[in-house]
Amino acid sequence: MVVAKLWKLARRPEGKPRVEDFALVEEEIPALGEGDVLVEAVALSVDPYLRYRARMLPLNSVMFGSQVAKVIESRNPQWPVGKHLVHYEGWRTHTLITASRLQEKDLQLQPLPEMQDLPKSLGIGLLGMPGNTAYFGLLDICEPKAGDTVLVNGAAGAVGSAVVQIAKIKGCKVIAFAGSDEKVKWVKELGADHVFNYKTANIGEALSQAAPNGINAFFDNVGGKFTAEALNHMADFGRVSLCGAISTYNEETKEAPGALTGAFKERVVLTKQLRVEGFLVTRWGARWMEGLNQLKAWVLEGKLKYRETVVHGFEKMPQAFIGLFDGDNIGKAVVVPQ
Amino acid sequence: MVVAKLWKLARRPEGKPRVEDFALVEEEIPALGEGDVLVEAVALSVDPYLRYRARMLPLNSVMFGSQVAKVIESRNPQWPVGKHLVHYEGWRTHTLITASRLQEKDLQLQPLPEMQDLPKSLGIGLLGMPGNTAYFGLLDICEPKAGDTVLVNGAAGAVGSAVVQIAKIKGCKVIAFAGSDEKVKWVKELGADHVFNYKTANIGEALSQAAPNGINAFFDNVGGKFTAEALNHMADFGRVSLCGAISTYNEETKEAPGALTGAFKERVVLTKQLRVEGFLVTRWGARWMEGLNQLKAWVLEGKLKYRETVVHGFEKMPQAFIGLFDGDNIGKAVVVPQ
Repeated sequence: MVVAKLWKLARRPEGKPRVEDFALVEEEIPALGEGDVLVEAVALSVDPYLRYRARMLPLNSVMFGSQVAKVIESRNPQWPVGKHLVHYEGWRTHTLITASRLQEKDLQLQPLPEMQDLPKSLGIGLLGMPGNTAYFGLLDICEPKAGDTVLVNGAAGAVGSAVVQIAKIKGCKVIAFAGSDEKVKWVKELGADHVFNYKTANIGEALSQAAPNGINAFFDNVGGKFTAEALNHMADFGRVSLCGAISTYNEETKEAPGALTGAFKERVVLTKQLRVEGFLVTRWGARWMEGLNQLKAWVLEGKLKYRETVVHGFEKMPQAFIGLFDGDNIGKAVVVPQ
Repeated sequence: MVVAKLWKLARRPEGKPRVEDFALVEEEIPALGEGDVLVEAVALSVDPYLRYRARMLPLNSVMFGSQVAKVIESRNPQWPVGKHLVHYEGWRTHTLITASRLQEKDLQLQPLPEMQDLPKSLGIGLLGMPGNTAYFGLLDICEPKAGDTVLVNGAAGAVGSAVVQIAKIKGCKVIAFAGSDEKVKWVKELGADHVFNYKTANIGEALSQAAPNGINAFFDNVGGKFTAEALNHMADFGRVSLCGAISTYNEETKEAPGALTGAFKERVVLTKQLRVEGFLVTRWGARWMEGLNQLKAWVLEGKLKYRETVVHGFEKMPQAFIGLFDGDNIGKAVVVPQ
């Protein structure tokens, strides 16, 4: 009998999440039916968007999230023991995946792509959802052209660090913001032309100096005041890709209980003729492997680098998640259960 | 010797413009040089966007704006006496247009299109800039498809009334807002499916009822609170065309001295994957006649109706302009000098 550990959402977070918002429980995994498999977590993902999910998730349900897992028991010849997959069954060490769930394979249940010698954890990072978020969100929404000036914030994060490098591959000038001197140093190593620590720099002055002719494409992970200021520095016909708004995820306001209230200025969007578009990466489900294959090719060619901040121990999932809002991670934040 | 009358911007408007912000002066027109023409205003345009121009225009310069004018004296065989044109030399009864200005013909100096039996004043209305604003701003930015639900505010105005009808021509369901019962009645006659008086209706409730499946395309003339509320009712992948924001033009705020501060919510734009784009109609300069020719064809086929609110007397230009912010006009606001 396998006993799974899992984290439930015990309390609705108010402001920055706290450890007490989550409860660690155990659950016996029942015997497998015909066609079922049992998988064990190899690497679990914590992502900023989960803060937003935590607003809507029913209390006492398993926290949402993705993981790379390995089949450890199988009654399904297509999913033999040792095979890896990516699933979104949440924060759990062991998961029974039924025959019927395996049949309705979708974006939230995929075989792990062939990784060659790369770490399997990339399946929840650069060669998974965050990588495709950067790839499609930049190329399809921002439509950067060689010579364009591209602005990226959260540039040392899982998505931002990929955006920086893809923009450089496409021949753009890249202006990046990150939240510590160590992060700034790494983002410079990734090839960004101008990198600023948003905690110490004056954002407006930095943008005036680094983008005297304006920003053509802005990939926004941060939202809030950063975005309001950055819009003033867009060039005419600039494109803004709204990927996330981590600076606002912990805010609760009367006017917009769902938070993410922003400071978009109609004047600026109108007179500069900007195009601002929000997206969820799932819209590119039909082109999913196109993105992952291109990203993997770039990694293998040495054009795309990555880092992971690994927290060891399943019991530290909440701390790893909370750490996202303290800027603890450089690159992808990953929890390895053991 | 011809003496022109002209209105100068005497004072920077604060809040809603006042008559005292403008000064009527006279100016002697000098003798024509080789290739010059003298034109006389036939119909002058007042438009909401001029409020915005009045923030930037140097004091004591002629108020900006367009007019249909007629050549009354000519030393240029290509511009004979009696020929009509549309120019943007501002609020003036008579204008000397030099040979060199006539050569650099652009969007702000165009021959009046052949009008057949239609009123020449349409050259500053439905068959001019406001018409093309509706045509391109709806079709190119909102990309309405047959069966889409389209929202238009300011729907009894020069632009909005054209948007309503073009959306109906394209097979859309149209929800429209206007500012009086008389306007609502007219917009219904234009074919809109649901029309509300924004001064008496609850905008949120009206949209919930009229667009239970959400709004696919929103052509925004109004901005501010209307827009913030309307965004909540967009369907996934909705398109928002930011044409103007008349509700905010008279606002001055510390945060955004240029006003037009809006209440865009990143949350809504992001989670609904909206595309919000601002535009100035000049971007379609290369396709200008495509728009005007299509609009004229629809007018002649009876598919596109129009109204004008005519103010007589050049000395009433400021009142006609101020009246835009009181909702005085149904259809295009036009000043006829005599």
